[in-house]
Amino acid sequence: MTKEFLYTEIANGIASQITSGVLNAGDKLPSVRILCKEHQISMNTAKRVFLELESMSLIESKPQSGYFVSQLLSITLPLPEVSRPSLIANTNEPDELISKVYENMGKNNLTLFSIAIPSGDLLPQAKLKKEIINATRELKSGGAEYEELQGNLKLRRMIALRSLSWGGNFNENDVVTTNGGMNALSFCLMALGKPGDTIAIESPCYPGILQLAAGFGLKVLELPTHPAHGIEIEALKKAIPKIDICLLIPNFNTPLGSCMSDENKKEVVKLLAENNIPLIEDDVYGDLYFGANRPKCCKSFDKEGNVLYCSSVSKTLAPGYRVGWIVPGKYKEKILKLKLLHSTSSISIVNEAVANFLKSGRYEKHLQQMRRTLQSNYQNYVQTIAESFPEGTKTSRPQGGLSLWIEFDKKVRTTELYDLAIKQNISIAPGRMFTLQDQFENCMRLCFGLPWSEDTQLKLRQIGNLAKRLS
Amino acid sequence: MTKEFLYTEIANGIASQITSGVLNAGDKLPSVRILCKEHQISMNTAKRVFLELESMSLIESKPQSGYFVSQLLSITLPLPEVSRPSLIANTNEPDELISKVYENMGKNNLTLFSIAIPSGDLLPQAKLKKEIINATRELKSGGAEYEELQGNLKLRRMIALRSLSWGGNFNENDVVTTNGGMNALSFCLMALGKPGDTIAIESPCYPGILQLAAGFGLKVLELPTHPAHGIEIEALKKAIPKIDICLLIPNFNTPLGSCMSDENKKEVVKLLAENNIPLIEDDVYGDLYFGANRPKCCKSFDKEGNVLYCSSVSKTLAPGYRVGWIVPGKYKEKILKLKLLHSTSSISIVNEAVANFLKSGRYEKHLQQMRRTLQSNYQNYVQTIAESFPEGTKTSRPQGGLSLWIEFDKKVRTTELYDLAIKQNISIAPGRMFTLQDQFENCMRLCFGLPWSEDTQLKLRQIGNLAKRLS
Repeated sequence: MTKEFLYTEIANGIASQITSGVLNAGDKLPSVRILCKEHQISMNTAKRVFLELESMSLIESKPQSGYFVSQLLSITLPLPEVSRPSLIANTNEPDELISKVYENMGKNNLTLFSIAIPSGDLLPQAKLKKEIINATRELKSGGAEYEELQGNLKLRRMIALRSLSWGGNFNENDVVTTNGGMNALSFCLMALGKPGDTIAIESPCYPGILQLAAGFGLKVLELPTHPAHGIEIEALKKAIPKIDICLLIPNFNTPLGSCMSDENKKEVVKLLAENNIPLIEDDVYGDLYFGANRPKCCKSFDKEGNVLYCSSVSKTLAPGYRVGWIVPGKYKEKILKLKLLHSTSSISIVNEAVANFLKSGRYEKHLQQMRRTLQSNYQNYVQTIAESFPEGTKTSRPQGGLSLWIEFDKKVRTTELYDLAIKQNISIAPGRMFTLQDQFENCMRLCFGLPWSEDTQLKLRQIGNLAKRLS
Repeated sequence: MTKEFLYTEIANGIASQITSGVLNAGDKLPSVRILCKEHQISMNTAKRVFLELESMSLIESKPQSGYFVSQLLSITLPLPEVSRPSLIANTNEPDELISKVYENMGKNNLTLFSIAIPSGDLLPQAKLKKEIINATRELKSGGAEYEELQGNLKLRRMIALRSLSWGGNFNENDVVTTNGGMNALSFCLMALGKPGDTIAIESPCYPGILQLAAGFGLKVLELPTHPAHGIEIEALKKAIPKIDICLLIPNFNTPLGSCMSDENKKEVVKLLAENNIPLIEDDVYGDLYFGANRPKCCKSFDKEGNVLYCSSVSKTLAPGYRVGWIVPGKYKEKILKLKLLHSTSSISIVNEAVANFLKSGRYEKHLQQMRRTLQSNYQNYVQTIAESFPEGTKTSRPQGGLSLWIEFDKKVRTTELYDLAIKQNISIAPGRMFTLQDQFENCMRLCFGLPWSEDTQLKLRQIGNLAKRLS
């Protein structure tokens, strides 16, 4: 881990006070002089603190008056409802809708609000290229031969080391690399599920997980989920006798952006372990937190090896590299066997490149920058939505990740909105994609991983105008 | 395709006469002068023809007498028996044995006769490194973003173009890339099989396929297989009512090295299509032919889109790149959906690098060299086996690929031989790994993808000596 600069530390402290509501929109911040005294820092450092907070769109300066908490933050639309899916496992797959949305994605000149990955402009492309070139030079046979089955040792070490920041108490021998995050989830489901088993998930849920589960013949039980705090523990408790596997995205889940509290994570882990139900934890968004600290994971509370922790660099660094991993706890042998059978080996070059990028400390710096950009994007989205979307629009309030969940008035059917928007070269993800039941017809997911620009703002406004036509 | 040089063409013609038995061990070849006249070529070209044939260990020169067909070729040990597996689907997995063999593979200083991949020395490492560097420079975002779902277009074009040489009548839109050959087979089985279905395969069969099928809950029906000509058509005909899927490695299959005739390929394709049984064809060894021409594939005779053709560059170019593909015929939509779910995208950099390597024509040149090396290795293996293995040893006679199948006298149990050999840092693959039944206990597979050297020869002799102890 690189030591963070002093000014970042102080800025994060203030940011945390703002996002947690200790400081409110319009509040005056201490002057540069006072900040210097309080923290015993130089004028220059104090000025960098404010610049940092300004770049996160958290504060704004007023000439001759100083710095104030941004008015942007006072814009909070109501939260969507807690989801109330049927507690009967359902298999009404939105296949056609998903195919339509994915097919259109291939089109040129499309503004892709529909896909939860960071745009290429947010990735450290030049530095990654150098790492690839170094990897081919340094690897035995230039990476043309198989690497060891469990995966690149340096990468596994870095993954273990980085997990210390969130209480992941494991070492390199506990990690198995995979070809990206979906491959990790696929191996977990293959290892644990047999046709007819029931899997409990969040509702709404990432469509890839719904389809993956359906593909393995699993019954899917959607759990009521709070737009800010994740699944409802009471509902999970009631469902326990019915379920064989649980799969959650506890941190900045897509599509809601919800994040479970530490207490809830702890309780879920305990509850599932007691009932011998394995928990697959997808943490691909965990590093993209807006607050001062990285959230913990369910894996942080796993004493029994019952949590299969999955993650990747696809949301933070390089989707195209397909570098992911599983920390499979007591299921390690099963996962290794599946990896041998279905993949034989990970791809040495990209894994070595990512390992070196992590080791160099550049990853932390890149993440700092990216989190700032995403938080600022998010605030710009919310402002634009508040200005131009129809009355009654509700939004989730993600404190990290890439996804924002929108709930319109019942009259606005987002499948219709999709058809209107695509004609204007805008792609959105209708809510119905995120469930196997008849719900979320008036909802949609927007990804804020696109660079913010006049054009992005214009396209968002266009969506608002189209929604107004339907409402 | 690059135009082959004239001397290669003539050499291949003569090689073909030798391997087909028109010319026999000890036969005198025409003189350089006569060759010049016959083909209207220069002395230099004629000399290159002989050098070429010499490098393939097909001919030898005798001072003052000219060139003769190599005496090496007169060494033919008897062929192993046609396998006679039980025709009841069986599931007696040799899991422990496979685990033992694979675990030991990780050890240092091991001579790996047990794994059917080319050694790093046979790969064009320097040229591949350059292609990787070019790929990161040329690809959008340096390959950090997803590529299109179906895979790299240039690569798909090259695959289609190269297939013309074996009558694969498809275009780039028919190809879907995968992360290596096993990933291709895994998608095919996932797309076609449901638990309880029966799959027909060769016997002996590659262990990865046995385990993959078992992992999907498929019943495995092993078909009687000729060590030179592949599965027995009559046996397949009888099995038809029982089977749901068929998976074959028709060209230089592992472990036997057998190759089906064109007529048999044609008949199998017809038979399966008539009965609506999909055929998964694994052709990863097809480019490694010793003869003059690349063998056709079952796909060459596929009119109904019923053959799912799978291949990769793992056996010929770069195992560690995991670049493979499926030509899935009428199952394309299913395969694409599985790819989206389980992999999201192939890894752009390695796919672009392989595409460019193929396009440059370097792949053909590399293959020519590699085929020569493998054929020469094979002949050296057979000679050493004839000299030092116990009496009664039988061997298959592969005309391509990387695998040689050895059948000892019944007394030699190759699981015991394995234990003795591993103590001398030699790894072999016991026959029992290649079946779910109690057979092949006196057989083993040897890979001849290791560079030939005094040490390789010594290690082979050691295996022979150990086998003599057991017989």
